[in-house]
Order: sequence, then structure tokens, then C-alpha cells
Amino acid sequence: MPALLNCDMGESYGLYKLGEDEALMPLIDVANVACGFHASDFNHMRATVRLAKQQGVAVGAHPSLPDRQGFGRREMAMKREELANCLIYQVGALKGFLEAEGMVLNHIKPHGSLFGMAGRLEHIAHAICDVAEIFKVPVFGMLGTLHETIFPARGIPFLAEYYADLEYDDEGRLIITQVHDAVDPALAAARCTRAIREGLTQTVGGRDVRVGAETICIHSDTPNAVDIATAVRAAIRAEAG
Amino acid sequence: MPALLNCDMGESYGLYKLGEDEALMPLIDVANVACGFHASDFNHMRATVRLAKQQGVAVGAHPSLPDRQGFGRREMAMKREELANCLIYQVGALKGFLEAEGMVLNHIKPHGSLFGMAGRLEHIAHAICDVAEIFKVPVFGMLGTLHETIFPARGIPFLAEYYADLEYDDEGRLIITQVHDAVDPALAAARCTRAIREGLTQTVGGRDVRVGAETICIHSDTPNAVDIATAVRAAIRAEAG
Amino acid sequence: MPALLNCDMGESYGLYKLGEDEALMPLIDVANVACGFHASDFNHMRATVRLAKQQGVAVGAHPSLPDRQGFGRREMAMKREELANCLIYQVGALKGFLEAEGMVLNHIKPHGSLFGMAGRLEHIAHAICDVAEIFKVPVFGMLGTLHETIFPARGIPFLAEYYADLEYDDEGRLIITQVHDAVDPALAAARCTRAIREGLTQTVGGRDVRVGAETICIHSDTPNAVDIATAVRAAIRAEAG
Amino acid sequence: MPALLNCDMGESYGLYKLGEDEALMPLIDVANVACGFHASDFNHMRATVRLAKQQGVAVGAHPSLPDRQGFGRREMAMKREELANCLIYQVGALKGFLEAEGMVLNHIKPHGSLFGMAGRLEHIAHAICDVAEIFKVPVFGMLGTLHETIFPARGIPFLAEYYADLEYDDEGRLIITQVHDAVDPALAAARCTRAIREGLTQTVGGRDVRVGAETICIHSDTPNAVDIATAVRAAIRAEAG
Repeated sequence: MPALLNCDMGESYGLYKLGEDEALMPLIDVANVACGFHASDFNHMRATVRLAKQQGVAVGAHPSLPDRQGFGRREMAMKREELANCLIYQVGALKGFLEAEGMVLNHIKPHGSLFGMAGRLEHIAHAICDVAEIFKVPVFGMLGTLHETIFPARGIPFLAEYYADLEYDDEGRLIITQVHDAVDPALAAARCTRAIREGLTQTVGGRDVRVGAETICIHSDTPNAVDIATAVRAAIRAEAG
Repeated sequence: MPALLNCDMGESYGLYKLGEDEALMPLIDVANVACGFHASDFNHMRATVRLAKQQGVAVGAHPSLPDRQGFGRREMAMKREELANCLIYQVGALKGFLEAEGMVLNHIKPHGSLFGMAGRLEHIAHAICDVAEIFKVPVFGMLGTLHETIFPARGIPFLAEYYADLEYDDEGRLIITQVHDAVDPALAAARCTRAIREGLTQTVGGRDVRVGAETICIHSDTPNAVDIATAVRAAIRAEAG
Repeated sequence: MPALLNCDMGESYGLYKLGEDEALMPLIDVANVACGFHASDFNHMRATVRLAKQQGVAVGAHPSLPDRQGFGRREMAMKREELANCLIYQVGALKGFLEAEGMVLNHIKPHGSLFGMAGRLEHIAHAICDVAEIFKVPVFGMLGTLHETIFPARGIPFLAEYYADLEYDDEGRLIITQVHDAVDPALAAARCTRAIREGLTQTVGGRDVRVGAETICIHSDTPNAVDIATAVRAAIRAEAG
Repeated sequence: MPALLNCDMGESYGLYKLGEDEALMPLIDVANVACGFHASDFNHMRATVRLAKQQGVAVGAHPSLPDRQGFGRREMAMKREELANCLIYQVGALKGFLEAEGMVLNHIKPHGSLFGMAGRLEHIAHAICDVAEIFKVPVFGMLGTLHETIFPARGIPFLAEYYADLEYDDEGRLIITQVHDAVDPALAAARCTRAIREGLTQTVGGRDVRVGAETICIHSDTPNAVDIATAVRAAIRAEAG
């Protein structure tokens, strides 16, 4: 099965616009839709779900730590149960909009610092599983982290994800920055092709680390996200033959 | 069918406690659960839904204008669609916790200023109907207001509600204050009995106005809410014979 | 004395960027700096105050109703004292950044819906005066509204303001929209010239209404704000001879 | 000089009430007033400053990490400059209310998790010093932590603080819980007497650790705070002879 192209979407807020969602939506398979805690609000969530529906794109929840001003990119100490509750709230809110549009929830993908914390802190990974169990959907995550061990051990379907527009450190962890820089679309596409074929990617330190690429992620707030999406989509299609 | 006793519940926030929910829950039939916009948060919503489940109490959504600091008791100008989106978000979030606990949504009851606005502003009443249509649940409201005309005209099941612990003005509208005062339980019960039998209540100006009492409301943040609930519950039981 | 060119500045939030503040700051005399309630946050306030200092621009407070998601452009019912407190908080916060940079507060200009409400609701106008009295600074406002009567009657220095980039209705009130559209810079400049010379402007209905132009306002979130600022600045310089 | 009795005050929010401020204010010397980020809002800040003024109590700022729902008791990753900005905003806001009431800022005392983080993370301690330098006020802190080394090294006047109502761990660090339990007033007073006389206190593990007691802190959200304040105040008076 070809890799699915997923993208973090719906990250505008109030009259602040972020990301070229209209241009990106036709290029992707799956949208990770912000749930109002790091980005988005009730109006943008409605509009994003509608846009996904028009383009036949599946919608997953992209919940966050409760930190709008920091865009969910600052780590916070959260206990397992309060984090699970925090995520249930967000996923439930998104499901409200899916219900309004006659759609179903496709998956959960934790946002920003929460994604990284879930890779190395057991109680955070378990909180995410607690929520995935309730909503009976798969979770996106990364090989070489607690995602790979805890999610399947809990019986949560897990899709290994490769990041086309972020760098990896020498431990194979994503380097999450508060603001995303533009990346070379051809380079991003070539990295994806290698991730799909070989299950490997090169770190900032020049090492090769193991990655999964059942689904490939791009970020809508990367400046040239549309170009990256176009190049990566072509690379995925080429591999799928 | 006897009148149902409903109560606004789950209005604590963070470490702030409001209302004697543990004592009230066994006394009521239906809980209107705050959804995080005027009160409550993800932890209190989980706890309130669990408490309702333990006591066999049905759970409805009690969504608000987006105004936590004002407890949803300040009117705000909202357009129909943005208000509908605002309510879908809140009702969806509550449904997330209901899904977690294996429960279903019972009804929607707008909170505070939103309730009053829906009684006299058509676009607000329609926004509430838009949301009730999506979630396919009844709405609580008041006779003599737009609730009585617009909700049924839209085909939304409507339960007429009597307020045991608030005053009515001479136009038959509720007097919504930011802080609730204690009321005499015996007086509250007597008013309920009259509302059930005669469909009438006396206003602050001494007039009689028409009220419905299919469901009777008490507020958990009224200082002596448990005493009121006990007295009103007995009055309802007595009428039900 | 030539009209001062003022601009609403510092309206970015978190990683959301709004307005071309770097390009606009050198073109204006006075910055109305957002205080974190409709826009901005502690990081953007610091950066905006620093930018103003570098360019020798005076800084006033641009406080709002407490409504970030609505960008302060939804009317809310506020009592006089709670609104005064709301504004003291915001102005005080801005003064913290001014103290950090060795600057002083120049004026107060209410934002968005608050500005309009202060023009027709006495208790709102008085709340603004209560705050201006505390901080001992002038307030910007509009002729033909309560600003013109209440501010001077309270002894608050008052600068009559003309809006270069907004339309006026036939009662001479500003038409405040949630999103600002681009306007023709030459037209904006010509309107400013007429406001300065004749004290008049044409409404959307084609009437002439009286306006003051001691200070002229442009908005940093108008799409072509830099072009408007350049044209209006030239018009002001031409009138000043 | 006798130890000063300080108390965290003004931690109510909206219609949520926390702490018996009216009863405590006459018993203390210095109030640490919440600034709206972990607790309080513009109305409660105004009321708290007025109450302090009536009772002749000095007012310091009690700023927090930006986390109202967690009451500032969850650690968050903050960079030095963004934290400094976060604190300037809060201290400035409080100074707005002090200016309204003709009072001056007495000191800064970081709240909750921020207090603990400043004791062991250099960039956090420096951010607090950056802010104290701007406002030219002393900071409260603890011996045996970075407070004792970094604050004086930066030239920031530092008052060593003893906590009458919290436990210390074996490393001499405060044990910060999200909810405070009642403590025995006589025991609290005896611990204060020993802290003043000997500069020592006993940890939960039974060890003695070095403490300073130039100022002694009680929390207004401890259930029996008034009794503790009364007992500790008497103990301080007895030592002052």
C-alpha cells in the first residue's frame, strides 16, 4: 500500500491565518486537524472539516498540550489522567464538527511537544493510548521511540510516520522548532523516497537512522508547504508504481 | 409524566470549586454539564460525567458564550454561524467524555446570557436549533419567549422549563445575575408546585406570568442548592402522585 | 500643528503574524500598541515597544474588550467598573514594557468594538475616562460621538481622530469590520486632506459628516497598509506646509 | 528586624472565590498579589490592592507561568527572554492597579512551579533577575537554591523566605502540590520559631536543612489559613521580643 500523505491543517486562529490549507488539501490523503488548544478555533475547525470533506480527505485529530500562546511547542508537565482528559476534550470537539458534516474520525496524531514527549515518557504515551482506545482509531507515531513499543503493546493500531520537512537528530528524534523554515522540495521528496525504499533517513549529524514511512507528514505552516507537498506526492506516487 | 428536576452541574474550574455536585447529583434527574467555556475544564467534565453515570443521571450539554472570566453572564454579539460553531465545539467536547463513559447526550440547554439572548434574538435561537439538529437532541427553554416559537417551528423537541431559584421580571423573563443568592427552599418548592399545577408564576412586580414546567431547574452555585433540590424534589414527587 | 499619523501596531500573537510593523513604524508618529486582550502577547509587546523606541515613535495603549478569539470586534456587555479594571490591567501591562525600555505612555486609544461603544454608551465612555485619569494621558476619539462630549467634560485631553482606511456610516460612525480590506492609497490620502482642510468626510451613503483630524489613523492589518501610510504621510506633510 | 509575614493573596477568579483574603489581610505584613496568569483577574486585582491599602499591607507581585487551568503548578519549558516578558507583563499589570490606588510595588515573588524552577534552572533565575532589575524591587527566595547564589550575584536584593505551611524534601526543596492541605497551626508556628532562631527546619525525611526566615510565607488557599496566620504572627512577635 502506498504511503499516505498527511498534513497538519486548520491552524489559523481568529483572524490570524496560518498555512495554505485551500492549496494543500487537494494534494494530501489525510488531514491532521487542530482542535483549538495550540491553534484553530470553532470557526476554523468547521471550515477545515468542510474543506476536507469537499476534497475527499480523511480527517484525524491533532490535539495538543493546552498552550495556545506557545503553539503547543513548549513542554509542560502533565499527569496521565489530566492529559487523557485534555485530549478527550479536543478529540470530542473535533468529532462534533465531523458529526455536523457527516464524517468519521480517522486517527489521532499528537501535536508538537506532546508528540515528542510521547516518544520518551511512558505516562504520556499511555495517556494517548487511553484516548485512542476510547475513540477506537489508530495513532500516528515514530519508530525508535516509545510510540513503537507502547502503542502496539496496548493494542492501538499504529502507523509509522516520516517527516518530510523536519530534521532528525542523531538519536532519531525530530527536531521541533517553534517556527518552521522552508525546505528544498526536491530534497524533501528524495528523503521520502529513501524512507519508503530503505526505511532510513540521514540525521543532522550525518548518521542513518531507521524510520517508518507508512504515512508521510508535511506541515502547513512551513513557508513553501505547497511545493513540498507537490514534490512529495509525486515521489509517493512514483514508489507506488 | 412528572416534571424532571435538572441542575446546572460541573461548574468548577482548575482548583476552584463551585457547587455541591456530589450532594446534588443523587437528588436530580438530569444534569446540564458545563462544557469548558463559561466554567469547567477537561478534568471537571470527566469527573462530572462519571458522577452522573454513578447516580444514573442523564447528561445534557450546557454550552455558553465564550467568556470564562464573565461566567457566560455577559451578553456578546455573535453571528448565527459563529455561535453555532461555538456550540458544536462545546457539545462535541462533552460527547467525547460521554463516549469515554459509555453514555449518550440527553439534551442541550444554553447557559446564562445565551439562554436569555435565545429568547429574544432570532438568529441566536436559530443557531441553537442548528446545533440541536446536528446532535438530534431536545432543547430546554421557556414559554413566552422565542424558544416557544422558533424551537418547535424548526422541529426541535422542546421542554418547557421552570426556574425554581431565580426571579422572573414582569415580561416573564428570567432575571440573570452574575452571582446567585440563597432562596427559601419552601418558597421555591411552593412556586414549583404552582408552576406544575397552574402553569403560572408570580413576577418580582407581582404579576402572574405563564410558565411551563416539564422540567424544573436549580443552579448548583446557589448557596443552599442542596436544600432547594430536596424541597423541590419532594414537591415534584407529591404532584406526580 | 500638523496632524499626527497613528497606527494600530503589535497585533501579532504567538507565531501568528499580523501587520507589517517593521515597514510601518518608520512612517508613523504614534503607535497604538495592542495590550494582549484582542491581540499581541508579552513577546510581541516587548518587540513592538522596542521597535517604536528605535524609530522614535511615541507609544500609546490600545486596550480592548477581553476577547482574543473575536479580536475585540464583538460587542460585550461590560459594567463601568469592570471595564475600567480591564483597561487598567492592559495599560499597566504595556507600561511595564515601557518601563523596561525607558519610555513613557503617550495616550490611550480604545480598540475595535470598545471604541464604538464608547461613542454611544455613557458608562463605557466614563470607564475610559476613569482610566485616563489614573494614567494622566490623553485619549483619541471621534467628533460627533460621546467622545467629544464626555471626554472633555471629564477634563480628559482629547485628540480628534480621522480614520484613513475605514468607511463612515451616515450617522458619522465608523464601520468596524472583523477583517479589513485594502483601500486605494490615493483615495485615502485625498480623504485625509479634506478632513484636515474642511473637517468633513463623505459617508457610504454620500452625505458629508463632520470629522476632526488632529490625528489620523491607519490599521496595520489592512492588506496594503504600508502604501496607505506612505500616501497619507505625504498628504499630512503637504498640508503642514 | 522581625521576620515579615507574607501571604499569597488575590487568587480568586471571576465568580470563583479562593482564600479568606478579608480575614487574612489584617494579620500579614506583605501581600504577594496574583497577576492574572495563574489566578485572579482585573476585578480581583483591583479589589485585592484596595484591601491591602486599607490594611496598610505592602503589595508585591506574584507572577506565574502562563497556565491558569493548572494554577501555575505545572512546569513549562520557557526560554529566558520569553519568561522575562511574561513576568514584565504581569508585574506591569499589577503596577497599573497600584498606580490607581497610589501605592508602590514592594517586591516580586515568583509563584508555584516558577518558584521551584528558579531554584534549580539558571536561565529561569536569570529571567527573574532581569525583571527585578527593571522594576528595582527585591525578590523573595530560598536558601540552598539558585535563588541564594544568582539573585545576590546579579545585585538583586534578596529576602530569604521560610514556608510555614509546606513541607520540605531532603534536598531542602519545597514540595509544591496542586492543592494545599490544612496544617496544624501550632506546629507551623513552632517550625517558624525554629527557622527564625536556628535557621533550620526538618524535612519530610527527618533531616535538618538550612533555611532563611527574613520573611515567612503562608498560602491563602490552605484551608485553615487564618488560624495558621494567627499562630505564626504570634510566634514572630514573640521572637521579635
